[in-house]
Order: sequence, then structure tokens, then C-alpha cells
Amino acid sequence: MSEAIDYQYIGTRPIRPDGIEKVTGRAKFGADEILPGMLWGKVLRSPHAHAKVRSIDISQAERVPGVLAVVTSEDFPNTRTGSPGLKRFAENIIAGDKVLYHGHAVAAVAALSSAAADEGLNAIKVDYEPLESVLDAVSAMRDDAPVLHEDMFTSGLETQPSKPSNVSRKQTISRGEIQKGFESADHVVERTFITPMVHQGYIEPHACTGNYQENGKATVWCCTQGHFDVRNSTARMMGMDMGDLKVTASEIGGGFGGKTTIYLEPLALKLSQKSSRPVRMVMTRDEVFRATGPASGSVNTIKIGCKEDGTITAMYAELIYEAGAYPGSPVGAGSMCIFAPYDVENVLIEGYDVVVNRPRVAAYRAPGAPQSMYAGECVIDELAQQIGMDPIDFRLKNAAREGTQAAYGPKFQAIGLRECLLAAKRHPNYQRELGENEGRGVAVGFWFNGGNQSSAEVHITDSGMVMVVEGSPDIGGSRASMALMAAETLGVSYDRVRVNIADTDSTGYCATTGGSRTTFATGLAVVKACEEVIAELRKRAARTWGLEMDQVDWSNGVATPRQGVNVEADPLSLRDLARGAARTGGPISGRAALNAQGPGPAFSVNMSDVDVDQETGSVTVVNFTSIQDAGTAIHPDYVEGQMQGGAVQGIGWALNEEYIYDNEGVLENPGFLDYRIPVCSDIPMIDTEIIEVPNPNHPYGVRGCGETPIVAPLAAIGNAVSRALDIRMTELPMSPPRVLEAISQNGTES
Amino acid sequence: MSEAIDYQYIGTRPIRPDGIEKVTGRAKFGADEILPGMLWGKVLRSPHAHAKVRSIDISQAERVPGVLAVVTSEDFPNTRTGSPGLKRFAENIIAGDKVLYHGHAVAAVAALSSAAADEGLNAIKVDYEPLESVLDAVSAMRDDAPVLHEDMFTSGLETQPSKPSNVSRKQTISRGEIQKGFESADHVVERTFITPMVHQGYIEPHACTGNYQENGKATVWCCTQGHFDVRNSTARMMGMDMGDLKVTASEIGGGFGGKTTIYLEPLALKLSQKSSRPVRMVMTRDEVFRATGPASGSVNTIKIGCKEDGTITAMYAELIYEAGAYPGSPVGAGSMCIFAPYDVENVLIEGYDVVVNRPRVAAYRAPGAPQSMYAGECVIDELAQQIGMDPIDFRLKNAAREGTQAAYGPKFQAIGLRECLLAAKRHPNYQRELGENEGRGVAVGFWFNGGNQSSAEVHITDSGMVMVVEGSPDIGGSRASMALMAAETLGVSYDRVRVNIADTDSTGYCATTGGSRTTFATGLAVVKACEEVIAELRKRAARTWGLEMDQVDWSNGVATPRQGVNVEADPLSLRDLARGAARTGGPISGRAALNAQGPGPAFSVNMSDVDVDQETGSVTVVNFTSIQDAGTAIHPDYVEGQMQGGAVQGIGWALNEEYIYDNEGVLENPGFLDYRIPVCSDIPMIDTEIIEVPNPNHPYGVRGCGETPIVAPLAAIGNAVSRALDIRMTELPMSPPRVLEAISQNGTES
Repeated sequence: MSEAIDYQYIGTRPIRPDGIEKVTGRAKFGADEILPGMLWGKVLRSPHAHAKVRSIDISQAERVPGVLAVVTSEDFPNTRTGSPGLKRFAENIIAGDKVLYHGHAVAAVAALSSAAADEGLNAIKVDYEPLESVLDAVSAMRDDAPVLHEDMFTSGLETQPSKPSNVSRKQTISRGEIQKGFESADHVVERTFITPMVHQGYIEPHACTGNYQENGKATVWCCTQGHFDVRNSTARMMGMDMGDLKVTASEIGGGFGGKTTIYLEPLALKLSQKSSRPVRMVMTRDEVFRATGPASGSVNTIKIGCKEDGTITAMYAELIYEAGAYPGSPVGAGSMCIFAPYDVENVLIEGYDVVVNRPRVAAYRAPGAPQSMYAGECVIDELAQQIGMDPIDFRLKNAAREGTQAAYGPKFQAIGLRECLLAAKRHPNYQRELGENEGRGVAVGFWFNGGNQSSAEVHITDSGMVMVVEGSPDIGGSRASMALMAAETLGVSYDRVRVNIADTDSTGYCATTGGSRTTFATGLAVVKACEEVIAELRKRAARTWGLEMDQVDWSNGVATPRQGVNVEADPLSLRDLARGAARTGGPISGRAALNAQGPGPAFSVNMSDVDVDQETGSVTVVNFTSIQDAGTAIHPDYVEGQMQGGAVQGIGWALNEEYIYDNEGVLENPGFLDYRIPVCSDIPMIDTEIIEVPNPNHPYGVRGCGETPIVAPLAAIGNAVSRALDIRMTELPMSPPRVLEAISQNGTES
Repeated sequence: MSEAIDYQYIGTRPIRPDGIEKVTGRAKFGADEILPGMLWGKVLRSPHAHAKVRSIDISQAERVPGVLAVVTSEDFPNTRTGSPGLKRFAENIIAGDKVLYHGHAVAAVAALSSAAADEGLNAIKVDYEPLESVLDAVSAMRDDAPVLHEDMFTSGLETQPSKPSNVSRKQTISRGEIQKGFESADHVVERTFITPMVHQGYIEPHACTGNYQENGKATVWCCTQGHFDVRNSTARMMGMDMGDLKVTASEIGGGFGGKTTIYLEPLALKLSQKSSRPVRMVMTRDEVFRATGPASGSVNTIKIGCKEDGTITAMYAELIYEAGAYPGSPVGAGSMCIFAPYDVENVLIEGYDVVVNRPRVAAYRAPGAPQSMYAGECVIDELAQQIGMDPIDFRLKNAAREGTQAAYGPKFQAIGLRECLLAAKRHPNYQRELGENEGRGVAVGFWFNGGNQSSAEVHITDSGMVMVVEGSPDIGGSRASMALMAAETLGVSYDRVRVNIADTDSTGYCATTGGSRTTFATGLAVVKACEEVIAELRKRAARTWGLEMDQVDWSNGVATPRQGVNVEADPLSLRDLARGAARTGGPISGRAALNAQGPGPAFSVNMSDVDVDQETGSVTVVNFTSIQDAGTAIHPDYVEGQMQGGAVQGIGWALNEEYIYDNEGVLENPGFLDYRIPVCSDIPMIDTEIIEVPNPNHPYGVRGCGETPIVAPLAAIGNAVSRALDIRMTELPMSPPRVLEAISQNGTES
């Protein structure tokens, strides 16, 4: 495991294959598909956080000059009679009888010009009956809270609930005897933490172009993390067979999980169907904030007990996650992750998925984990302080390792948590002397990583170019990682590999890029497809030499007769064999399709020194160190980029970002001026150290590395600020007003 | 062989998958790719048939407002130093030191508007030194003829030629002893026939859009019969690796062989590279006639001898084909086909490929065969007349059959010539009584059909839709034939199959659609890919039932435990297995790539009754009967369409079509008003009869059926007119002036 394998291409840092296209402006993003006769599509959105829709009158809008089509939920009849799941999915895209959040789509128009589309929206008359709204999970759980869904009853309870609730489900992970565990503890810390709803903050707003044809087939162009799943869900909402909808993924200007679902695509297609024209829809930034899926806000209560020597005896968590207007928060993943780094006997985790009058949440890097682990890692830190133990040593003492049975289920194979902790401990940044008003925070991050279905085809051109075809949008360098793995497997130069993310009509199914699955799972498909190519190459060389395939070896990019086979033959390279392919049996290719099992869990350790201005409450991040087990780093530049990007997003979440609603449920900061994500001047260079403990379930040891980087920063910064102030901070963001308030309250209390 | 197999889908006539798109105007053809910022590209063409290009001054053109790029052959430096083959290929696309035909491309411009492009063309100054031109093959073969290529020496001669020649090669097919054969004959007929240069007459002019990017990659959209070969040849001319050029085939408005090569694509790409903009180029009809590849004009001398009882003893042909400005006429294929229908001991065929100052020829359905077989079948007819034998009986007496060794090489497997002849003889049209001034002509047609390389992938969606991906442009119904073969192989309904012709980045190599290869070769790849899918389906069913794959059968679209396997299990359909694919191993798919061997030769018999107006010389086709062995007719509507279309094109070739040049080598009829192709009112309904003798080398017996239909009509009409007039017509087209001239000359002679 710890022996480094000497790869030829894997681990090198070639320039990114999509770089020139992007810096020259050639790359086509979601809004860049131009079709002749294309219309402008726009959405009418609810001004209310919660209201009954008594009626929608589109007759005036349809008469606006230039307006060619208007759609409402009535244009999707199959979603109204479909399964509850489909109904809720569809209602988030276009509201049914109720609107459930400020910005909820109610109708859409397509028109010849932007102005005509606006006029069309203005001409739609919606008769709303405003209802009382509820904006946070704790309020929504109260007995007297307004109920969003009259047909939703809490699942996962011991007794069947008798009345509808905003709690969609309770989820429990349990092991050992939690009470006994706490009884045997010498120290117990219990605290409640609050995290805000935050947005992924991708630069590119959602955009698509839909074109519905008279033959019942249609095409969609859009920016997405998974065009196959866009196809499947859009087709379902349109009542089409998925095979009749071709979806092409544009380049993507950031997704981070937020582009794993759909908002505009069925509207554009339905408008296209009604107008017989292509329809393009592009969200404004305002719409992105109001009506796409942010990360859950949460209220999490953590209780951990340990012995005097640092041995943790019990870990308890109550996790309350806002799902937004429809059920489906990532509280499950939050529950799986929170205590995964620790080998502890007695664990109880209770999670609640709660609907509120806010936009339906979507995935955001390691969805659910930053919120729960922020809380858990802060309590760990406080316990370490209580017993006077170094926070890294405290974690080392309890760290999971190979063979540890994780509370959420699996028994870990080779994992790199200890290696990360040891690297942190010896890191120069951990030796640095702290200044006045400075504090140092440490935290562990974890993500289990995803597998799931992927397909790939590999075609060799006559010129010996390796054409990889697959269906996973490249959101973080997967074209480069696929090319490196193909080069390594085949033994051909990286420069001779091209990777094409094909449309849904042209390649096999790949599940959405997310959960850090793509380099692992689609990579596995690419490697297996290359292995089919190698088998074919051996067959062709054998045919050339008059041998059997078994008598031919393939290594270092050439076919040679196997040792002991008595033949005079010059080695044949892929290029040689490609040139003669027509004569030896036709084009050379391979393919694979699989449901990848055994993704490798990825642990990280983050640490940061912060300086807190006692007068303004402003927190300056002095340094930030991200250490992560990436398994094998296929292209280390991209891995470091993932680590740095996750750190920056986590720092924003910790210090500045939050959705601010007024009492009526109206979002007050739907723009980057008021919703403050970190900019370059806010942050230091993020130091990175990649740990490589190969995943035994992947031929090159890939784990996946995109999610974990965002998990630990919240607690690392939280612990640093708490230690700098000597006040336990329990609510994010730790913005200047909130820090000042803590300082002044502390002054009052002490 | 003769037993009809009872297929479930093959042989049915579902509506065409591309029909609705085409009648609604949705289908995108060569000129329909619209890219933002796209420029107009236009070509400057030679006004001379033969001239030295002393210099080209583009400096003024580059200064025309709106002109963003100008290219000449100097912009393709690698083609000037490349192989002679590449040099000639490139020079036909943009002339080097000489122009060789009226319309030869000399330069191209890209501009913001059509008018600016025209102005740019006008501002290019070319200094020509006109040279003597030669416009027909016989003149070009004379010792004192102007020589087009100083570096071209005749190949295939017994002695090495000492000086350059317009004859690029002599090709000989020989068997037996031709002299002896003629000596043993009781009757010998020898005649020389002339056929004109004719155009395929496709409705859609050549068009493309090229987009060259700063990263050295490029895309081309174009109408073509083979986008992979467009990729390969365009990349070669651009000095790019083929893997860096993505070519997408548009729908095609007719090709008939004329869209198997390139004219505009490298010019558009080079203009795009120089202007950093996408460039669209669309030929005018005038350009299509002047500068794309028509069919060879020919002068063919045939001599055939037979015994009194009709046994043919010797067959001789001298075939002289015009290649146009660069070598490469289909005289080879003409030689292969001419006597293939007959089992004759003594055969000699001498073919000459001759360059003249006309556009370089391209393929036109069964390239080379109509010209030679027109001549051969006319002489056969005359011999039958001489010995007083029914022309069908005469052919039956000498017909090739299974086991016959064809003069051009192969020993025939199962073929359908006799079946066609017998069908012709019993056809009602053959029993019809002829009116005054009417004549009946019979002729046999032949095409060996193509195999070549093809690839296909098949992906099954979760909904159980069968997505076939392949790279053969659909020029005559191949989407339907692929879908029918996939449906038949898998046992799923035709409605559940979709066929996508993918771009060159997304699927495996398929050679150009032509030579009637696609339903045979790409069909074979689709069938083999479906067989991989079936293996996968059996594996999945086995996994579901806890069995081994060998214990599961697939038939009639369902998996069942093999007889004798003791398991209670309901059959699982493709749809059932698709729905559960994620659980049984991931997406279900298959692929195949091959170089298809063993295409089945296709014979036809055509017959026609014509009425000749003795006063005007006008020929009315009273009826026309096309009988052809198609092997298995996968979709009989399309097969009949091919037979009817070939007949109509052949009738046009026989009666009206010809390129008319003036003495300076200027084309005088470059438009459909003056180049007369048949219109509906010119022709009767073409009667068809499909004979099905399955090709033993294809799982469904496919032969290929697109070429053969155009081979026999020239002679069928020729023989009919000759018999109506009782004058042997020997030159095409048999237009009214020529028929009148024959009538008047005959009157003079007799």
C-alpha cells in the first residue's frame, strides 16, 4: 500500500485539454447554443413564500405581440397524476396548486424578444391566497407550524404518525449502547450548532436550449453535471421515452452539486413544443439564488464523551436539516459522515429532514457532511481542550483505520486518515508560533465517495490516436484524468489521447458527475475499455505474425511475441497496428459498462491559523493547510485545485455566506454584492499536501477527491476562531457582527 | 437458399424514421449549420480549361472591407511536398501551378457578407497563361495531344513508357484464349459505343461549415456519404492528425456517389483558421456542375462471338474512360462488371484511364458499370437478334450461376441472375403486345457490392429503448434497415429501436457509404453488437436467477432458463432486464468493429418498351420493369425505391443527360434548365420485382441493392430504341436530334 508505484503518465501534470478553448472564449457554455428561430424563454416566479394558487389566467399573455407560447403546470398533465415523487419533482419546476417559496416558478413564456417575454410575464394574472410561511427547520417542526404538504407524514418513526408534518423522515444510525457509553465517560461536551443555507456560488447561471420536434423527439443543450439524468428526468416530466430525448452537455461554469438536477429544461421543451420553435432559457443571478438548490441550513446538537486518556466512549448527534420546500435534504449523508473518522463503540445519530418555505436544496460538494462535521469536529476540539490534549493526538488516539467497522456500515479497507493526521502534525504550518489574537483550528473531513454506473468506448484512429468516448461532464478535470489513465493502460503518450464527452444518443449511460465518482467509476470503465483494446491489439499482432493471441504480450505500448515463442518479429506499437487495422480485421475499439463497486473513502485534515480583530469582529485567515488522502492522484494539479477550491468555499461558508430572508420569506440578498463569497484578497494561498493511500478497488488506486475538501474547513475555521477568542462559536457564518456579538456577550457573561 | 425465412421485422415496411423531420423541414442539411459569427466562404474558379497559373495576387482582395481571409494553394504547404497522390487530390480542391478545367478552384475568400465575398473574389488577380486543352479521351490519347500532367506516365503497359501521357494506366483482365474463342464463333458482333459525361444530379449542392480552433482542433459540418473519410482527407490536407478533426454528417439531399469525396471542407477550415471565425461554404448549382465529380464519359468497343446455338465463345472489350483532370476513372470497376453475368471461357478486357480537361470524375452509383455494360449488353442483344434467339433465352443460355468463376476473379456463391431472368420472362410486361413504333429492350445489370470497415455500438436505456450508434450516413434508408436488423436480432419491436449516425468523435470508424456496402457491412456490425447485447442480457438474467449464463436462452425477445434447468422463473424481456440493469452490473451495451468480407454480388434484369416518334426523334418510355436480386430485402419499400430511382437516373442517362462543352472547354449547360434530368412527366411508373436469393455471408442474407439498379437501364433503353427503329444506336444520350439523325442516316444508307 505505502509503496509508490512508478507510473509513466499517472501522476504527471500535463496542461488541461480544455484550457485553450476556455481562455480563448471558444468553449460553449449553457447559454451558447444558438439555433435559427430560437425564442427567449422566461419564468414567472412567486412573490410569496407560501400561497395557494387559486387560478392562473394566461389569456392576456398569449395575446402579447411576440409571445408564442405560455406554459403552466397544466401543460404537464402526467406529472399531476404520477407518483408522489414525480409530482413533487415536477412541482418544484413549475408550481401546482401551491407556491412554496419566494421565487417558485409559476408559469413560463417564450417570445421573439426578451422584452416581449417580459411583457408576456407581466400579462399573466395569478390569483394567490397567501398562507403563513415557516422559514427554519426548528420552527417547522413545531406542532402548530404551517404545514407545507398536507399529504406528507413523517417516515422512520416507531409509531405511525396521525397527522401530516413538515418532517419528512427521521433517520437513525445506532451502534452499541449510547447511555452506557456516556456513563463511562470522564468528560462530556454537548453543544448545538447552527449553519446557514448557503449557495454553491457557481459563476454560470443555469441555461438551456430545448427543441421539440413534430416527430415526438427532442433535443436539449444545457450546462449540467449529468446530461443522462437530465434526459431521464426531463423525459419523465414530458411524458416521453428517454430514448427520444437527446441531451448534450455544454461546458460547465461550475456546478459543485448544484447542477445535478433540473429547473428549466422541461419548461424550455414544453414551450418549444407549443411554439414549434427552439427555446433558450437563461437564469439571472437573482433567479439562481431564489430558485435553485442551495445547501441545507441545519441545527445540530452534538454530545461526545471521553475518558481522561482521550478514548472516546460515546458519540451522539441530532441533526436537523432544512430540505427547502420539498423533502430530500442530505441529512442521511450528514449522518453517515459525522463520526466516520472515529473508531467508537457507542454511537447514536438521529437525523431529521424538514421542509420549510425556502427553495428545495440540492447537492453541494459532499452534500450534508460539512454541516454535521462542523458540529462534530468542534465538539471534538472542545473535548481535546478540556482534557488538555493536542487536537491531532486526540484524533489519532480514536482514529479509524483499516479494519474499523464504520458506524454507518462498511468495514474500512485501506484508508489514509492516520497518514493525514501524522502529516498535519509534522507540517511546518503546525509548528508556527501564533501571534496575539490568533488561533489555530484543526478538523478532520470525510466523504465516502461514490461509485455508480458508467460506460466508455475507446476507438483507435488509423493514425493511432486514442479516442475515448464517455458521458460524464468534465466538471473538475475528468477529461485529463481519463486521458492519463488511458495513456497509462495502453502505454501510449498522453498527447495521443482525446476524450469526448458525447451526447446521450451517442454513448452509453453514465450517472451524473457528483459524489466524487467520475475519476473512479468512469475511469474504471475507460480502463476496462482500454483493456478490451489491448486484447484486440494482441489479436491483431498475433494475426500479423501468424500466432495465437495467447502468444502475444502487450506492454509499454508495444506487442511482442511472448517469451519462449520462437518467432522473429519486431515489436508492433499501437500506431503500427492501427495503420494496418483494415487488413487485420477492421477498426480497433473497446467498450465497457459497469456499476462501479468499492469507491475508496477519503479523509482529510485541515488546519488554519486565523487572526480575529477584536474591535471589528473581522476574521483574517492567516494560513490554511489542506491535507487529504486522494488515493492515487491521477493529475496532482487538479487534485490540489480541488483541495484549494474546497477550502475557499468552506472558508466562505464559515465566515461570510448566508441566505437572508425577511419575515415574509423574501430573500434579501440574491446577488453577489450582498451574498458575499470569498474573493482572492480574502484568502491566503491554500497550502496542500496530497497523501496517497491507493484504493484497493481501483486498478490505479483512485479514491475520488472532489467532495472531501469542503468538509473540514468549517470546523477548522470554527475551532481557530473559538481558540483565538477563547469563546466557543456555535453559529455560522462567523461574520463580523456575529463575532462582535460573541465577544460582547462573553464580556457580559464573564 | 430458396426457402423464405419467416422473419418478424425484416421484410416489413415501417414508415421511415427520418420522414417527419424531412417533411416538416426540421432536418438539417449541409447548409443548415448556423454558428455565431459565421462568415461566407466563396471560391474563385478558373475561366480556362487549361492554363498555367503564373501568379495570384490576393493583396487587393485582402483589403476589401468585410473580407477576413483569402486562401490559395500556398496555404496548404504540406500538400505541395507530399506524395503525388496527395498533391493531385489537393490540387483538385485548389489548383497549384496549373488549372486543368473550366471551374477549377484557384482561391477562396471568407467575408462578413455574400456581397463582400463576391467583391473579394473580383479583387483577386490571377495571371493565367492559357494552354491548349483536350476534352475527350480519344483525343487525349493521341500522341500530339496536350499533356495535362508532365509527371504522369502510363502504368500497366508491358514496356516502361518513355514520355508522359494522358493515359494514367492500362488495366487488363484476361482469361482463356480470346483469339481461339473468336475463331470458334459462328457469329461475331463488334461495335463501338460512346457515353457522355453525366452528373448524379443530386438536389442538394455541396455545403459545409468549418470551424478551426486555436488549440489545433477543428470541426466540420457537411453533407457527405462518409464523414469519417471527410475527416481523414481534410485532416491530411490541413496537416492535422485525423483525431483532432471532428466531422458531423448532416442529412444529405442526394449523393449517389458524388458526395464520397471533398471539395470545400479544407478551404472552409483554412479560411476559418486564418479568420478565427467559423466559415460556411455552399456551392451554387453552376459550381456543382462545373467543378464536382460527374461520371466518366467513355468510348467502348465490344466484340462478342457465339455459336449458332447461342453459346458465347469469346468476349472482348476495350474500355476508354475519361477520368477528368486527374487520374482515377472507374474503368476498373467497369472492367470487372461488363462480362460478369456470363459464364464464358475466353475473355479479354482492356481498360484505359485517361485524363482530359474536364472536372475530375467521382463515383456515380455502380461507378463504371453503366458505361461498360451499356456497350456489352447492346452487343449481346444484337447477337441474339442475329441468331434469332429471344434475348432472355440467349442470356439464360450463358448465365453465370453458383460455382461460376467470374472473369474478374471470384467464384460466385449463391447468385440470383437466373432467377431474375426467369422472372423477367414470365413478367406480364414481357408478354405485352408492342404497338407500332415501339421496341422492347432487355438488359442485365451487375454490381459486385462492397464490404469494407464498419463499427457500431448498441446501448440499452433504462426504459428498454435500443440505441444503435454508427457512423454511416443514411443516404438510402440505412437507419431503417439497421433498426429492422437490430429489432430482429434482439426480438424487440422496431418502434423501440433508435439509430443515431454519430459524429467522428463519438463512434467507431465506418468507411464511406457507397458501393452498396452499408446495409451489408454496417448492418453486420449492428447485428454483432446486438449479439453482444444478447450475451449481456443472458448474463443479467442468469445473475437474477442465480444461474450460469450458459443456462439461459434468449429468443423472441425474452430470456428463459434453458430447457432442463430446474428453476422456476418468469421470462425476462429486454425491458425487464434494462430496468434492473444497475443492480445486475450496470448499463447494458454491445459493440462491434469489422472489415466485412463476402458482400453478395447483385444481378438485375431490366426491360422496357419505348415508343419512338419518327418525326421528332422523341422517345417515350411506355413501361419499365426492374427485376433485381436484392438478397434479403430488409425494408422492401426502400429496395423498390432504389430500383425505381436507379431506373429513372438510367433513363435520363440513356435519353437526355450530357455535359456540353464549347471548343474552348467551357461548360455550356451548368444548370437544370439546360442539363435535362427526367421529371415525373417523362417517365412511367417503374415496375419492380424483388428477387431474394440470400447472401450466404450475411446473417440475414443482405446483398446490397443501391448500385445495380442504374446499370441495366442504359442498355435496356438502348436496345428498345434500336429495336423500335431497327437501327443499332451506339451513342448516348439518345436525345431527339441524335435519334432523328440516326433515322435520317439510316434512310440515306439503305
